[in-house]
Amino acid sequence: MKRSMYAGSVRLEQLGQELTLKGWVSRRRDLGGLIFIDLRDREGVMQLVINPEQVDQQTVEAAEKVRSEYVIEVTGLVAQRDQANDKLPTGQVELQVRNLTILSTSKTTPFEIKDGIEVNDDTRLRYRYLDLRRPEMLANFKLRAKVTHSIRNYLDALDFIDVETPMLTKSTPEGARDYLVPSRVSQGHFYALPQSPQITKQLLMNAGFDRYYQIVKCFRDEDLRGDRQPEFTQVDLETSFLDQEDIQAITEGLLAQVMKETKGIDLSLPLPRITYEDAMNHYGSDKPDTRFDMTLQDLTALVKDTDFKVFAQAPAVKAVVAKGAADLYSRKDIDKLTDFVKQFGAKGLAWLKYTDNTLAGPIAKFLTDISDKLTASLQLGEKDLVFFVADSLEVANNALGALRSRLGKELNLIDTSQFNFLWVVDWPMFEWSEEEGRYMSAHHPFTLPTADSQQELEGDLSKVRAVAYDIVLNGYELGGGSLRINQKELQERMFKALGFSTEAAREQFGFLLEAMDYGFPPHGGLALGLDRLVMLLAGKENIREVIAFPKNNKASDPMTEAPSLVAKQQLEELALEIDTHD
Amino acid sequence: MKRSMYAGSVRLEQLGQELTLKGWVSRRRDLGGLIFIDLRDREGVMQLVINPEQVDQQTVEAAEKVRSEYVIEVTGLVAQRDQANDKLPTGQVELQVRNLTILSTSKTTPFEIKDGIEVNDDTRLRYRYLDLRRPEMLANFKLRAKVTHSIRNYLDALDFIDVETPMLTKSTPEGARDYLVPSRVSQGHFYALPQSPQITKQLLMNAGFDRYYQIVKCFRDEDLRGDRQPEFTQVDLETSFLDQEDIQAITEGLLAQVMKETKGIDLSLPLPRITYEDAMNHYGSDKPDTRFDMTLQDLTALVKDTDFKVFAQAPAVKAVVAKGAADLYSRKDIDKLTDFVKQFGAKGLAWLKYTDNTLAGPIAKFLTDISDKLTASLQLGEKDLVFFVADSLEVANNALGALRSRLGKELNLIDTSQFNFLWVVDWPMFEWSEEEGRYMSAHHPFTLPTADSQQELEGDLSKVRAVAYDIVLNGYELGGGSLRINQKELQERMFKALGFSTEAAREQFGFLLEAMDYGFPPHGGLALGLDRLVMLLAGKENIREVIAFPKNNKASDPMTEAPSLVAKQQLEELALEIDTHD
Repeated sequence: MKRSMYAGSVRLEQLGQELTLKGWVSRRRDLGGLIFIDLRDREGVMQLVINPEQVDQQTVEAAEKVRSEYVIEVTGLVAQRDQANDKLPTGQVELQVRNLTILSTSKTTPFEIKDGIEVNDDTRLRYRYLDLRRPEMLANFKLRAKVTHSIRNYLDALDFIDVETPMLTKSTPEGARDYLVPSRVSQGHFYALPQSPQITKQLLMNAGFDRYYQIVKCFRDEDLRGDRQPEFTQVDLETSFLDQEDIQAITEGLLAQVMKETKGIDLSLPLPRITYEDAMNHYGSDKPDTRFDMTLQDLTALVKDTDFKVFAQAPAVKAVVAKGAADLYSRKDIDKLTDFVKQFGAKGLAWLKYTDNTLAGPIAKFLTDISDKLTASLQLGEKDLVFFVADSLEVANNALGALRSRLGKELNLIDTSQFNFLWVVDWPMFEWSEEEGRYMSAHHPFTLPTADSQQELEGDLSKVRAVAYDIVLNGYELGGGSLRINQKELQERMFKALGFSTEAAREQFGFLLEAMDYGFPPHGGLALGLDRLVMLLAGKENIREVIAFPKNNKASDPMTEAPSLVAKQQLEELALEIDTHD
Repeated sequence: MKRSMYAGSVRLEQLGQELTLKGWVSRRRDLGGLIFIDLRDREGVMQLVINPEQVDQQTVEAAEKVRSEYVIEVTGLVAQRDQANDKLPTGQVELQVRNLTILSTSKTTPFEIKDGIEVNDDTRLRYRYLDLRRPEMLANFKLRAKVTHSIRNYLDALDFIDVETPMLTKSTPEGARDYLVPSRVSQGHFYALPQSPQITKQLLMNAGFDRYYQIVKCFRDEDLRGDRQPEFTQVDLETSFLDQEDIQAITEGLLAQVMKETKGIDLSLPLPRITYEDAMNHYGSDKPDTRFDMTLQDLTALVKDTDFKVFAQAPAVKAVVAKGAADLYSRKDIDKLTDFVKQFGAKGLAWLKYTDNTLAGPIAKFLTDISDKLTASLQLGEKDLVFFVADSLEVANNALGALRSRLGKELNLIDTSQFNFLWVVDWPMFEWSEEEGRYMSAHHPFTLPTADSQQELEGDLSKVRAVAYDIVLNGYELGGGSLRINQKELQERMFKALGFSTEAAREQFGFLLEAMDYGFPPHGGLALGLDRLVMLLAGKENIREVIAFPKNNKASDPMTEAPSLVAKQQLEELALEIDTHD
């Protein structure tokens, strides 16, 4: 029998119709001589009723046999329920079953198929197909498909050409670590899986495609964190002849359409812009969460003349005020916060509580001379709790920025119904890497430096600014873009500034430099992290919730057990030997 | 200045407007004191005119400097041309330039940027960005994007959920050769790039997604032929609870929409169906090109009693008739055809020419007793040329099928404006592999055998039939699908029939078998080769023409030189050593 419709879609409209439904048994109960089954399919759950006295023996036997997660086919009449269940969209109706057939049986599942389960991550991944049966998971993937559909329609309408770029590319160690793919035809040689189609999409601009986009898998072999996966998906776009504002406007239109179509929210455009410097100074973050205030206050000038040398002599003294939180944090709690900020380089965390118009706390006695000024400057009110970091400006910003995020969550200051998009603009071109002991690209080596800072490529690299723009949502970096270098000479200077020898630059990026010999148009673009975007729209905190078959934090898949050992012959064909001994 | 519009889109409609255009110099000529420039962008070419006496010195200098493939920006007035160029969509108008700026210069390109060039493949790939500037190439990628857009809209409208499946998967050596990706975290272990998301999409059916699709990269490390690439793109779909006819109907609707939207062609549905057996017997191919006739004629019965033992004793004697071709093939030509059919296992190629109501040729004298019957049976007419293969039925079919394809092309029998879609149904489950000395899956080990042939899994494997269906277009296999096994016991029997030990089956496919313990619904699907589909729609003969950055026939990219050597440190992190010595 053909299925008439999804069980989860049956409504009063179908009253009196004979329907055939197929799906999974969510629950079976015997009650008053009747058998009740909750039938689940991807659109929802519907109640079936079997009256053993009104159906044939085969159906009675099948109905008695069914257990949770059996797949069944039923035919029957849609009737109105005596007692409607208002919690279910199908709750007004039930199917009075005439015929029931078991299509597939099931063992008892290792966890219940329902929302809000408490099961460890590896078990969920090991039985991912069962995990995905849970309505909240399926909803994430419907949302994800809706988001990509919306994005594609938007970009198609703007004449962007969807072009597939290669997965088997060249390894370019600048950036994150590549996943390598050994070649069989050229033994000893390797492809790399793309970290992004950055250069390829630039070459499409060289080719005159003018507007390119792709929703594409990218790969980074880095240690995994909550919102990192070995493979992730990027909404990647590139345009020719446009400036930063044009590209930002296109992106804003895209986000507005997605928000409208998936959440029914009207974004107010243009989105707010903040400079990198302001973001660091006010929020202590290059991806500020603006859903709550508690900005960083600069007290450096105010404390300069105090006798408290820790403050007076520090290059920067900054503070955040937790309004009304004085009684919420014990000394022990504050010790924990002190340990926390130390992870961000702070040597300590000073604090004051303001109660009964008085500043109290270990350092209060050192600040009596400026206590009025402090109180006024920080606009303190009863029961406010102030945290200070006195350090380099960078450390003070980073430490208090991290503290601000933590306090925002702990104090429930965040309205999780809000979607606060924000552009961070005017980026430094380089950032110092302590690990590598050199300046590295803040974005990538193809980013266009601003015209008035290009001369610093041969001078102070910290002063080179980039025509770059990141888009931030609720404290997450959602994506970033830039105008790109299209002139060979400037690109060569950039490689040199990054420490590449002429030979190394040519060996790794020679094809890009050569392309610059042949009429490379001005161009720029942007990439959005699709997994993160969908995660945030779904209100989740881990991208694994919106990836159908993700890896665990050891980059392996507990279901298939990938990565796995392979046959000797496979390695021989690739001329590879494994050497895990030294 | 912002670009007003694409140069290639300017029409009489814009007469009198001042426009700013940006693009590439396709050609520059000096004529009668004026400078003419053909400006190219992705929408076409438009003529610019610079009158040195009416523009400023800067523009004159720039206009004199420009060469082919310079990128320029021009502002000017749209005027009607004195002599319209009917070959160009913009041919009614020209831009009278007021201002010209050079945005990017160009060396002389290694080949001309125009359609129909004769350049060797590696040069085209080495400068792929220049190759892609050629209008015919850009048109292929616009077509490709239009095809995927059309497919997505069709499937989205049918409630298929677009789900991304992993690229880093488990190696399963059954099938083609995997591309491997070494793991750094689990040294000595490997991921494999997916040959198709077959099992994963089946698990999505287990998860209750009901209708899944994805346009997805797949990978096979096989030796390359004209229409093979290491990575290729598949339109992949899977459904639950549907039967073969349902899935065929969905596919037909998809193809009809694509044909309508990209070629303006109304497909007549349902598409023709032919059984695998009939396809082999009538066309000598499991992917028949039905754009021309010349079907294989079975003469086995007719020649059984002739004295010509080569025919009388052969298990099968089959023929194709090249109508009116008798004078077009010399003995030397026919010798070449004989060599050709030998590649397909034939021991020889007999032939006859029919002229003046008489059969002539080396074997004519042996067939005088049946010459009338032959002539009647083959419906021979003046100047017909008949080729015979006497061999096993399989060899006769294969050899004459290949000959038929070759003759069809050589004799220009093919109407290339036609798009002949065809279903090939009722497939054998297994095919004998001479190479491996065993039966292998004709499709894959997850294909459902027909109910009435399942008992042969433990008997004669050649008799097991599959619920499988291939879609063929103009002699190319465009895609294939099947219903799948959803019962563990049957899947285990299938693995056993394929020679897997219980342990080997569990090791490689244990997760699929386990999923069959938990209410796996009946399901089936299909995959289409997107590259081939677009290639055929574009009227091309190589999928490289519709892949932006393909590999050459050594699986390498002459532009980036991928695959390449990698740093020692990269190999060390993966615990790999290269051993190309033995």
